Amino acid sequence: MIFSLLKRAKACVTEAACLTEAARNKALLSMAEHLVLHTQDILEANAKDMEKATHLSLVMKDRLALNAWRIEAMAEGIRQVASLSDPLGKVLDRRLHANGMKIQKITVPFGVVAVIFESRPNVSADTAALTVKSGNVCILRGGKDSLCSCEAIVLALREGLKKAGVPEDLVQLVKDPTHESAGVLMTAKEYVDLLIPRGGKGLIKACVENATVPCIETGTGICHIYVDSTADFDKALAIIKNAKTSRPSVCNAAEVCLVSQDIAPAFLPLLRKALVDDRLAEGQKPVELRLCPLSLAYTEGKAAGEEDFDTEFLDYILAVKIVKDVKDALTHISLHSTHHSDAIITEAEENARLFIASVDSAAVYVNASTRFTDGGEFGNGAEIGISTQKLHARGPMGIGELTTYKYVIEGTGQIR
Amino acid sequence: MIFSLLKRAKACVTEAACLTEAARNKALLSMAEHLVLHTQDILEANAKDMEKATHLSLVMKDRLALNAWRIEAMAEGIRQVASLSDPLGKVLDRRLHANGMKIQKITVPFGVVAVIFESRPNVSADTAALTVKSGNVCILRGGKDSLCSCEAIVLALREGLKKAGVPEDLVQLVKDPTHESAGVLMTAKEYVDLLIPRGGKGLIKACVENATVPCIETGTGICHIYVDSTADFDKALAIIKNAKTSRPSVCNAAEVCLVSQDIAPAFLPLLRKALVDDRLAEGQKPVELRLCPLSLAYTEGKAAGEEDFDTEFLDYILAVKIVKDVKDALTHISLHSTHHSDAIITEAEENARLFIASVDSAAVYVNASTRFTDGGEFGNGAEIGISTQKLHARGPMGIGELTTYKYVIEGTGQIR
Repeated sequence: MIFSLLKRAKACVTEAACLTEAARNKALLSMAEHLVLHTQDILEANAKDMEKATHLSLVMKDRLALNAWRIEAMAEGIRQVASLSDPLGKVLDRRLHANGMKIQKITVPFGVVAVIFESRPNVSADTAALTVKSGNVCILRGGKDSLCSCEAIVLALREGLKKAGVPEDLVQLVKDPTHESAGVLMTAKEYVDLLIPRGGKGLIKACVENATVPCIETGTGICHIYVDSTADFDKALAIIKNAKTSRPSVCNAAEVCLVSQDIAPAFLPLLRKALVDDRLAEGQKPVELRLCPLSLAYTEGKAAGEEDFDTEFLDYILAVKIVKDVKDALTHISLHSTHHSDAIITEAEENARLFIASVDSAAVYVNASTRFTDGGEFGNGAEIGISTQKLHARGPMGIGELTTYKYVIEGTGQIR
Repeated sequence: MIFSLLKRAKACVTEAACLTEAARNKALLSMAEHLVLHTQDILEANAKDMEKATHLSLVMKDRLALNAWRIEAMAEGIRQVASLSDPLGKVLDRRLHANGMKIQKITVPFGVVAVIFESRPNVSADTAALTVKSGNVCILRGGKDSLCSCEAIVLALREGLKKAGVPEDLVQLVKDPTHESAGVLMTAKEYVDLLIPRGGKGLIKACVENATVPCIETGTGICHIYVDSTADFDKALAIIKNAKTSRPSVCNAAEVCLVSQDIAPAFLPLLRKALVDDRLAEGQKPVELRLCPLSLAYTEGKAAGEEDFDTEFLDYILAVKIVKDVKDALTHISLHSTHHSDAIITEAEENARLFIASVDSAAVYVNASTRFTDGGEFGNGAEIGISTQKLHARGPMGIGELTTYKYVIEGTGQIR
């Protein structure tokens, strides 16, 4: 069954690529409109998913649950994508060959973009919007927990596409969210031009290891904040507090704090006060500190195990380690970073330069919170994921990163 | 052993990335100088390879053989790479966040680039030059036939690096060209940032299917030339002759000619005259035409089998098929193209536009020879390969395509 869906997707690739900007934007607004029109159907479908969700944790149930407000937010997200400037047809390079040929390098869509995701049903609407905007055709393969919700959402989106006069098959949902269907998407080289996994570590690893189609590694963020010997303590504390506690479940949250040995005796008690005592006093959940043997001498907390420096906690937990200096911090980061976002807090220009040059991550920060790694904050609009690989795209991937290019050469009979 | 080599490569990644443009260019000129200085050693090593090469065809032996002139050409190639403008440190995007943070998107090297290639020993010098210029570290893994030659070349290049005061380990050769060493390079995610296979179909397929490290699919070119009903016959014949016979062994040579049924009766005899009779009269090797059943009615040649339309001949052979019209040609191309280079010969603007919009290949030509798909011709300098995939780079990959980017965010304590 999945092959008939892939064939239908491939069949409308050229039509999708040739849609004018106006036609794509009209389709997006129609998708948003029909999503809202079908609010009741989507909520009923979501109720079925929720009924079956007895095995899920509270957090996961919250990710799965929809309400009228969340559906309107999805629609608003689609409208925002419609308002972005067109990523297609940009001339990246243009030259006239000495023989008179005109050579242009022009942005074009990938073709069929497959996205494998987990429980959040809103991913289906977000992804559909970004792919339609960029002239691609998308195949959505969600998790089984959100199947009914995703079916209802995609039905509404397809109705919107049809009403706007473009092929409904621009957006398709895989209805058997099995390992097999995921496996087909990872290896269908004839049909899938780009595969993007959106979800946990296990899903991403499976895709990266098994995909023979071009695949983007997204997401996992073990983000470091290094507090240099020259750091301004107020900046350091505000940034760590923000990066750890403003939204611990996201990939740009900090997981590890490295502290220069020169300032550790003075800084660590302040860190504990900011993340534990002050939060307790304010009735907020305190951060659990997992401390390296050296830092245990300066403040209280749990002794860290080796694995704590290789764990994406996604929770109110921070691993803390004392390092000798910036070079020692760089060595630690090079061994443990997932190449997402890493920061240095320093007042020494030289150390900032060294950190920027040496850290091999998508986003390298000086005196700012890692939480800014996000398409919206970087000025590129909504994102389909955050790439932690170096091939094609790095960091937030928006509609621009959903395009490739081709060379168009126009001649009058030139030969070489 | 290969792991110790990978570790040494990884260990000098930051140093390579931080080398100034002047230091990299000085290293390249020194590499060229020492290559020439060691001409005698390289020729002696090459003689050993040639002695063992009794199993190779004449063509393959010619690819393997070196002489003083070829070594000087390699050195000249390195000097040319040195003269290219710097691909590193380019600011691709720059914005000031409303909160005062400075966000810059800056080109940086990949890190460790592994290249698996086959018999031509000059690939080692070309690759080393392109990676050093782009601040990368390279691991070369050639075929066993050229092992002695590559060892001598890499020894000379490393001496050049050392004399220029940069780490020799920027360029390393795998000394056991086994399936095992290739397998390690394809899967060493901790060490290899980019894998590029350079060679035949089998090698490329093995890499694409087995690599878990980011890999670029290069090379295979089943290039089509479609002769439209409105084509100027003189242009068509000159272009086909050039694309088929100027250098049949390369990936941008034409393999398939599609002819509109409207002009086939008049055009096919002229095609045969140009590719067979005229060449015979000039004492040149004629092209073997493999004709579809319909075209056999209009000219002489061998009957084509189905497989002839899916074969990269790399030889004086051209498969010929009559199609109904431009749409029929597009359908054939979408099913059989390897997404390298395809051309239309037409005087109808509308058909040219349709062809450009619909053909999903790295290079799409109107009235020019597919032979132009080449870094030099496109104005980007020497290339490490021609990408036939859509992720990251498409078409000729030069030093620009050997870079990725990172976001550098400089703040004064900003939190989100």
